[in-house]
Amino acid sequence: MAEKLYHEITPEGFGIAIENDEDLFSDKSPYQTVDVFHSRAFGNVLTLDGLMMVTERDEFFYHEMIVHIPMLTHKNPENILVIGGGDGGTVRELLKYNSVKHIDMVEIDGMVIEASKKFFPTVACGLNDERVSVLVQDAVDFIKDKENVYDVVLIDSTDPIGPGEGLFNEGFYNNVKRALKKGGIVVPQTEGPFAQSENMRKTYKLLRKVFKNVAPYCGPMPTYPGGYWSWGFCSDEVEIPLDSSRIDKVRANEIAKTCKIYNIALHGAVFCVPNFVLELAKG
Amino acid sequence: MAEKLYHEITPEGFGIAIENDEDLFSDKSPYQTVDVFHSRAFGNVLTLDGLMMVTERDEFFYHEMIVHIPMLTHKNPENILVIGGGDGGTVRELLKYNSVKHIDMVEIDGMVIEASKKFFPTVACGLNDERVSVLVQDAVDFIKDKENVYDVVLIDSTDPIGPGEGLFNEGFYNNVKRALKKGGIVVPQTEGPFAQSENMRKTYKLLRKVFKNVAPYCGPMPTYPGGYWSWGFCSDEVEIPLDSSRIDKVRANEIAKTCKIYNIALHGAVFCVPNFVLELAKG
Repeated sequence: MAEKLYHEITPEGFGIAIENDEDLFSDKSPYQTVDVFHSRAFGNVLTLDGLMMVTERDEFFYHEMIVHIPMLTHKNPENILVIGGGDGGTVRELLKYNSVKHIDMVEIDGMVIEASKKFFPTVACGLNDERVSVLVQDAVDFIKDKENVYDVVLIDSTDPIGPGEGLFNEGFYNNVKRALKKGGIVVPQTEGPFAQSENMRKTYKLLRKVFKNVAPYCGPMPTYPGGYWSWGFCSDEVEIPLDSSRIDKVRANEIAKTCKIYNIALHGAVFCVPNFVLELAKG
Repeated sequence: MAEKLYHEITPEGFGIAIENDEDLFSDKSPYQTVDVFHSRAFGNVLTLDGLMMVTERDEFFYHEMIVHIPMLTHKNPENILVIGGGDGGTVRELLKYNSVKHIDMVEIDGMVIEASKKFFPTVACGLNDERVSVLVQDAVDFIKDKENVYDVVLIDSTDPIGPGEGLFNEGFYNNVKRALKKGGIVVPQTEGPFAQSENMRKTYKLLRKVFKNVAPYCGPMPTYPGGYWSWGFCSDEVEIPLDSSRIDKVRANEIAKTCKIYNIALHGAVFCVPNFVLELAKG
């Protein structure tokens, strides 16, 4: 039987193709078109305006990276803010930490959250946890009056087009910085170094205006453009954790036991990025 | 204008899609169908039996990784064997080393070499160098009577189906080992950890039967399945170069200046691989 083929072709003229076995959901929210289909290769797949967001089979690459690098670098992360992240994968990883007292997740699109709860139960499984507040609103507004509240802020957003656009400017990042406690860490996703190099460069130009210590870290992400993704470690007080030997081994090894990717050797290694990525991350 | 779309869909049901602007070459060799097309995204693209082999724009990811990790770990690599590698990218990187006296490149399919010289001039540029012997023959036969000849052997092969199949068995690797000088290093490509995990596991099972020290190292490779690739560092005498501080800084920095990826920090970091890759590489 010929399968339907889902494509995401970037403006540069390439992308991923996935056999779509069955359409499961399609609706328009006030912000975007939300689609879910089932694939043999990746299990359930969620796209927003046709762009790949999350699959059951490879989501761990993204969620382990955005969470465990900052969380295991911070000495005692208690209050956490997740911006975007409506699928719940980032929250699921955060809930592995006993130190965490509260997580605010601010997602603009309630339909993403509902679709994830229904079609991605292994990803969205933490969203009803008593330590989590799920806030369906624009993070640009939410962050405006926050001061000295969060230990770690994770920006698990879409690309800098559509609803995610307001999350890629200096005013927003200044507000994020004000919302941080002393010794706080911010990690945004910073786009694909190979497939979206100009987006990445612009993002680092912005991050370097706002934070003293900024460094990219990278990892594979099979269903995202180019299969290769980056996140930005940003802090004013915390140094870039280049040296795995400074990480708390007991805490890191406890987390690593639950992970498909994260281990303590990898903690420093993810910051050792290719020359062309170092160049892009100069901004 | 609607573009033609090239797909490589793996047996698992996903893969890359690339807009094909123009077919440039298509012919059948005694071994496989060789096609070349032009794409806006990747420049010229060469496929064998429809499977992605090399593109002008992302070949550096693969060629820098297969070459510079073993070459900068070996103290004085003089005689090198490349098995496969008909596009010439591996040879081009090897020719950056003043220590190299001679390179044998043994490629089974002359049509791959000719197509590369014509359509990939920036990749095949070293194949006429006086230090290089290009031998169009089956490496399985070539290696049988070689003993104590090579410092470094690189196995730049296709997948373990079709013409590459004979390069994935114990008899072949025992011959490769006999062809090594004392202190020699062998690096084969060892498939995609995410997209071809069972191929990878079988390959490591084999490598561990033959060599004392075996470890995977990984990196992005946008046009290969899953966007994520692995190579296997194998040696009887040389330890896995986990510690970049043991690498000769002067030599490594000279090479790094010519590279889009390689730098000395990355040398050890590429061996810090995800938990699921460590598990596959147990064999």
